Order: sequence, then C-alpha cells, then structure tokens
Amino acid sequence: MHQKNNDILKNYIIITENAIDVVFSSDIAPKTSVSEAMRYSLEAGGKRIRPSLVMEFCRVVSGNYEKSVNAAVAIEMIHTFSLIHDDLPCMDDDDFRRGKPSCHKKFDEAIALLAGDALENLAFRVIISSDYDDNTKSRLISEISDATARMIDGQVKDLSFLERGSLSEDELLEMYSLKTCALIECSAVMGCICGGADESKIVSAREYAHNLGLAFQIRDDILDVIGNEKELGKPIGSDADNNKTTIVSVLGIEKASELAEKYSDIALDKLENFENNDFLKDLTKSLLERYK
Amino acid sequence: MHQKNNDILKNYIIITENAIDVVFSSDIAPKTSVSEAMRYSLEAGGKRIRPSLVMEFCRVVSGNYEKSVNAAVAIEMIHTFSLIHDDLPCMDDDDFRRGKPSCHKKFDEAIALLAGDALENLAFRVIISSDYDDNTKSRLISEISDATARMIDGQVKDLSFLERGSLSEDELLEMYSLKTCALIECSAVMGCICGGADESKIVSAREYAHNLGLAFQIRDDILDVIGNEKELGKPIGSDADNNKTTIVSVLGIEKASELAEKYSDIALDKLENFENNDFLKDLTKSLLERYK
Repeated sequence: MHQKNNDILKNYIIITENAIDVVFSSDIAPKTSVSEAMRYSLEAGGKRIRPSLVMEFCRVVSGNYEKSVNAAVAIEMIHTFSLIHDDLPCMDDDDFRRGKPSCHKKFDEAIALLAGDALENLAFRVIISSDYDDNTKSRLISEISDATARMIDGQVKDLSFLERGSLSEDELLEMYSLKTCALIECSAVMGCICGGADESKIVSAREYAHNLGLAFQIRDDILDVIGNEKELGKPIGSDADNNKTTIVSVLGIEKASELAEKYSDIALDKLENFENNDFLKDLTKSLLERYK
Repeated sequence: MHQKNNDILKNYIIITENAIDVVFSSDIAPKTSVSEAMRYSLEAGGKRIRPSLVMEFCRVVSGNYEKSVNAAVAIEMIHTFSLIHDDLPCMDDDDFRRGKPSCHKKFDEAIALLAGDALENLAFRVIISSDYDDNTKSRLISEISDATARMIDGQVKDLSFLERGSLSEDELLEMYSLKTCALIECSAVMGCICGGADESKIVSAREYAHNLGLAFQIRDDILDVIGNEKELGKPIGSDADNNKTTIVSVLGIEKASELAEKYSDIALDKLENFENNDFLKDLTKSLLERYK
C-alpha cells in the first residue's frame, strides 16, 4: 500500500484496539475471568480488515469515521468469536492462530467455548449500549445478526463438504459467500448505515464487499499452498493435509489466481460509485497481492 | 397447579412451540442442516417456564399476551443454546437431556457447537425481525444481551468453583443469581416491556423473578438428591458423582428446603404488586413443589 494509506490503515487498527479497551473497562464487560480469554483472542493481532472497512465506508459516505467505531468493534467481536470456535478440537482443531496458541490451548476448551459465546453476545451489547438512535441500532443489529447467521451456515456447509468427495467451483464459491463474505459485506454496509448513506450506496458497498470477500478467500487458499509459514503464523499446506477441497485443489493455482483477480477487479469497479475511494482501492489491491 | 392454571400453562407451551415452527419456516431460519439440530433441542420439551413468564407478565400488565410471543421465543432460544453448550464434553459432558440424547450425541460435537451459536444469534434475529417499534426492540435486546452476559458469567463461576474445594452459601447464591436467575429475570422484564408496563412494575417483576430463580435452582439441587431418575429425564446424584458443591451439600436437604421456601415466599410477596396474579402465584408454588 502507499505510505499514506498504510498510515490510515494503521490508524484504524489503533482505533479498533483502543475501542476494545474501552469496552472492556466499561460496565458491559464480563465480570469474570472469561474476559481475559476474550481479550486474548481479540488482541491477538490480525489484519482488522472488517473494522477498517466499517470505518472507511463511514468516512467515504459522510466525511467522518467516528460514528462507526462501535459497529467496527462489534463486527471484530463476531469475527473473533467465529475464529475461537473454529479452532476448537471438534471443529478445525488448530493449536495456533496468528502465530500464538489458539484460545483453547492458552486457556482450556470450556473457557474458549464460553469466550466465543460471550463475544457473540457482546457484539450485540456494544451496539445496543452505544448512542446510536433506536432506528440505527435496529438496522445495525439486523445486519449483524443476518451476517452471523450466514457465516454459521457457511461453517455448516464447510463441515458437510469435508465429508464429501468432489465439489464443484460453484458449490465452493457459495460456501465462501456465506463463510467469508457475509461478515465483510456486513462491515461495508454497517459503515454506510453509520454514515447515513442512501440505499443505492448500500447496494454498491455490499456488492463491492461480496467480491472483495471472494477474492480474499481465494487468496487465502492460494497462500495455504504457496505461503510462508512464518509470515502466515500458521502451518502451510494444512488444507491439503486435511484433504480439504479448496478452489485451488479444484482449479489449480493459475486459474484460481485469475479468478481472484476477476473478483478483485469487479470489487474495484464497484468502488467507482464512491468518491474519495483511494484508500479502499489501495486496500483492495493489497489484499489480492498479500503474502499473509 | 389448579386445572385452570394448568390449562393456561399448557396453552403457553403450545403457543411457544407453534411460534418456534413459524420462525423455522420464515426467512430468518438457517438455510443449512444446522436448523435440524437447533429444532431438535428446542423441541425436546422442557417446562417452558421462561416463555410462559414472558407471556404471563405481558398479559398481567396489559391484558393480552400476544405482543410478547416473539420475546418469549427469543428467551427460550437463549436458554436452549446454553443447554446445548453446557452438555458438551468440555463442559458438563452430559449424554442425556430431558430423557433424550443431548444435541452432540444425537448429531455431533461440531454441529452442536454451531447449533448453539446459531440459536444465540437467532434470538436477536427474532426480536429485530419482529414488528415491535425500534425503541421496544432496543429495550428488549438490551435486556436479553445483558441477561446472556450474566448467564455466561455464571457458567464461568460454576467452572471455577469446580476447581475449588469449599464454597460459602453466599458464593453459591451469587453464582445461581447469574447462571439461573439472569434469564428468568429477563423473561419477566421482557413481558413487562412488551406489555408497556411502567418502571415500578418492571422493578417488581425483576425482584419476583430473581427470588423465583433462586428457589427454582435450590429445588433443582434438591431434586438431584431426592428425585426420580425417570421423571427428571437425567441421572440423579450427578452433582455428588461430579463432586459438585451445591447448596444441598453445603446446607443439607432440610436447610436448603427452608431456603427455597424463603425465596419462594419473597417471590409470592412481590406478586402482590400485580393484579390478576393467580396464575403466577400458582406457578410459583408448583415450581417449589415439583418433582421434575
């Protein structure tokens, strides 16, 4: 990314992390030791793509990201809850996440389970306890609960696919649309809602984020084959080791790369509906070209 | 219970179960096989105390329960999500619930995990997709997310108590206040909100439900010692087998029974703040005297 845009991204990351601190020192924070496990996973780094999209869409449509910080934190909580539960032994059984022990390895399974449950709930509490007006709260909660439902449906599809042999490109892309795109779409749309955007902008933001999400997930699958273990913070080749069908195993690296580029190009095209889209364009390109 | 009140309770159970059917045939239902596991646990019977309290408090304060059906279904979903996750091997590791295989035994652990996650989310979707006005939605979601947070804090305390030896009566009652009372209080309060009750009624309803919840949990602990396995639908003596400290192991059966009666009496007293409290009084007494 250009230095200027990289600085903006870094700033969004700092804002997200500060806002997480604020939540955990407020009266909506859990009162027991589960909050330690929640914070451990929330603070384990990560690219903070989702909260950054919330804030940047709000800024692009209204000139100011500040109204969207609570929505940004909420979507990061939903994302983190899904990662904690995804890493559990009965799911992907991953001992590491972003180069650190996963939540159930750092604590234990019961605490990881409850930390995920509590983060899912806290996302709603963050929005409902904010100073958005009641209509904005309703719209945000409608978006976030719809996206969470789709994300979980995506995980269920992912599980059922593991039990099956061959999968078509379309089946995989539908699963990605649920598992990966749902929260990314929700991020862009919530940013628009917080910024008071009209319905046509919301439609464009959703289409942008849908295509970005597909490109992002395909790039993830590619990195699982060609990536560097240290940069990724998790073992490479894990999909192949788990006999997992991905878009790369179906299409091969070259065709998968072309497909990621196609979706990234559609996403860039949708950004033409927004002024001041320089950061979003740069972010979109950088996510396609990333190595971690 | 008196026949008339028993009929009212049966009617609330039917309404709850019909409303669950309506949710699962609506467009907010999950689109994958996870919905089968969610419905399995939701439809596994149970006393439906929480939804009945929602509807009855709405009726008592407004003359009509119909406005509260969505809130009633939502709290039953939160309750059911907590049971599914509680039964998982990393938590209580219970193979049976209400005489039927628990969710992870009927399906598998991954599906039970996701079914719980999806029910927690669906509770919020049910409220946000209903035709309550935005202010009522905000108040209901605030109550339900606060109660869910407290319930999870109670589970965390319960886990930490398992690792410790002796516990005081106060520590146990504080844990029961979180783990058991939170959702019961939320039920009574949501019923009042749906019925348009004023703040003083809401305070009374919360105090009633808090004391009912304590009496209910102490009776549960007593039944774990003196109950009939077939009626309960789960093994008796499981607390003792798990070396679990309960109010019965601390105080003995007799003193625990007196304590349950004390809380039940306070609950009955709080009901004097409501007219048409005949059903609630009868329900409160029957829960103290129940054998399942």
